[in-house]
Amino acid sequence: RTMATAARKSLTIGLIPADGIGKEVIPAARTAIEALGSDIPTPKFVDLIAGFETFTRTGVALPEETVEVLKNDCDCALFGSVSSPSKKVVGYSSPIVALRKILDLYANIRPVVSVSPNPNEPSKVDMIVVRENTECLYVKQEQLTVGEHGKEARATRLITERASTRIGKMAFELALARPRKHLTVIHKSNVLSVTDGLFRESVRAVPLQDTRFEAVTVAEQLVDSAVYRLFREPQIYDVMVAPNLYGDILSDAAAALVGSLGVVPSVNAGDEFVMGEPVHGSAPDIFGQGIANPVASIRSAALMLRHLGYIEAANRIDNAVDSVLREGQLLTPDLGGTAGTREVTEAIAKRI
Amino acid sequence: RTMATAARKSLTIGLIPADGIGKEVIPAARTAIEALGSDIPTPKFVDLIAGFETFTRTGVALPEETVEVLKNDCDCALFGSVSSPSKKVVGYSSPIVALRKILDLYANIRPVVSVSPNPNEPSKVDMIVVRENTECLYVKQEQLTVGEHGKEARATRLITERASTRIGKMAFELALARPRKHLTVIHKSNVLSVTDGLFRESVRAVPLQDTRFEAVTVAEQLVDSAVYRLFREPQIYDVMVAPNLYGDILSDAAAALVGSLGVVPSVNAGDEFVMGEPVHGSAPDIFGQGIANPVASIRSAALMLRHLGYIEAANRIDNAVDSVLREGQLLTPDLGGTAGTREVTEAIAKRI
Ligand SMILES: CC(C)[C@H](C(=O)O)[C@@H](O)C(=O)O
Ligand SMILES: CC(C)[C@H](C(=O)O)[C@@H](O)C(=O)O
Repeated sequence: RTMATAARKSLTIGLIPADGIGKEVIPAARTAIEALGSDIPTPKFVDLIAGFETFTRTGVALPEETVEVLKNDCDCALFGSVSSPSKKVVGYSSPIVALRKILDLYANIRPVVSVSPNPNEPSKVDMIVVRENTECLYVKQEQLTVGEHGKEARATRLITERASTRIGKMAFELALARPRKHLTVIHKSNVLSVTDGLFRESVRAVPLQDTRFEAVTVAEQLVDSAVYRLFREPQIYDVMVAPNLYGDILSDAAAALVGSLGVVPSVNAGDEFVMGEPVHGSAPDIFGQGIANPVASIRSAALMLRHLGYIEAANRIDNAVDSVLREGQLLTPDLGGTAGTREVTEAIAKRI
Repeated sequence: RTMATAARKSLTIGLIPADGIGKEVIPAARTAIEALGSDIPTPKFVDLIAGFETFTRTGVALPEETVEVLKNDCDCALFGSVSSPSKKVVGYSSPIVALRKILDLYANIRPVVSVSPNPNEPSKVDMIVVRENTECLYVKQEQLTVGEHGKEARATRLITERASTRIGKMAFELALARPRKHLTVIHKSNVLSVTDGLFRESVRAVPLQDTRFEAVTVAEQLVDSAVYRLFREPQIYDVMVAPNLYGDILSDAAAALVGSLGVVPSVNAGDEFVMGEPVHGSAPDIFGQGIANPVASIRSAALMLRHLGYIEAANRIDNAVDSVLREGQLLTPDLGGTAGTREVTEAIAKRI
């Protein structure tokens, strides 16, 4: 899962803060990357726009130029967060969902890890949610008709063997690299025997094609009981692989276990491109106060670099974050502290 | 939400234990109802079959006779739990999903309440998940095709104005009867603007037709963040209303907050019929040991009676359950105790 990095002289990173606190935490991630110095090629940052605010201003949520620059000029990117309109807005469609599809970022990798106060103690929660990122209900094929009893809306849920197999491979690969080597396949095939049946079968068939994966133990769970058990016995999970919507819900659920969505990072990864993205939303309630937690975004930068093969650089960022969290002196309000985005970012940057 | 009961001389209750621990907990619910004595018309019980075991034996998961007896002879019913096959089994289809649809039990009402040790202290968790019970992905319209890149499966997610409006009414009615009168509408309209947009709009339009409902405050949440907030601040919820699948996941998540799925009851309610059902599954891992928690099933019986208008009888059952849980002497292993199904059931029956 490492993209060839040998030939890189510089590293061009697209920055798309988008809406709300995305504008506060993406600059924090940039600060962390800049603090790395010579562990990575000299980073070049390109500021790009997208989001609901962009839509309100220009009529387009994801300008073509943003996509073109990402495709042609960038090695990777960091995306902030988007605001959802509180009413139906004609013509608006989520730019993050679109970007995942256009750039074929088929894997949404969301490690959820708690930081123990004692560095020698293992984390209580330590799992990766691997979410299929291009299909399921996110294909957004919806129709509205008017029948005898009023309006009727239909959406298509698409699950393909191809996408399920490739996300399965990614999940097995990630599980294989971890000490426990355990994978839980999430589905709801007791109701969706065809679509979730195909997801389950495709993932389970992956080791038949690559015998390395036989070292991974495989379990499965229905999505409803997976969420229940996630809260009751999070230690049973190592890597989870799920269709798009279940993965969306499961990763938010897992985030509740580690204190805050404000610390959970992700990457949207494809074979050609990788885009870091904090799991949290645009948080309009706290936007503008300078108190957004920069950790999710900074960890997303680390995850992105790790995915590109800059392991040392990623470790330096993650260790700096862990040390600040462990100390517990500088925490944002979501973690019970009183520090601001800037203070936390500076403390992390200093330790990088 | 009360069905006319005046004319009833006897009360015929269909019992469908189905699979696994359903066979242990449905008899417990029967014991509780029998302990009521004269608060209800003399109960008559009719034993009915359905489930995966029935399928393995007869080739049919939900025999026609079961449906006919429920429709023609029963005033209400109690359903246990079904086992899901661990592999795809041709011809098998969940009997509980089918029953909900055939009997048009459009509302799945799942109160999730924690019992405080001190009876004068309010419950920490006290909410009702109102789940639409007939459509969404549960319409089970699925197709499999073979394309260029292998198999492709599609499922239809159906959301209608009619079903969304009637579940909305039920939710408003339930919220109106509670002290806080607060309703949270769950959706994911930032992705599913047409289907979840219709659900949201239809529910929100309910008070326009019935001004009593203006006393209810309405909030809304995206399903992913609803699960997150459920764990972080369960006290923000009073009544939640959700499309079928989100309701399935949310009610399991809420169950994790009150100690065990083994205490969470539900009713599947329509305008003509009501069927109690514990929220837990068939738990093959503990089946046969006599340690299944009978509380969910006994509370489901109470909820069913409440729905039929036997408020006093329902209160007597619920108070007996609360008193046994509060005492904490007789608890099944899922709640950290060592008691068996029979002991707990007898203790509850004695207090009824
Ligand atoms: C903003 C929204 C479309 C998005 C999603 O559902 O994927 C978000 O919840 C996420 O988890 O990244
Ligand atoms: C057994 C299964 C089909 C069912 C559902 O998904 O509705 C169960 O999980 C429930 O919550 O009643």
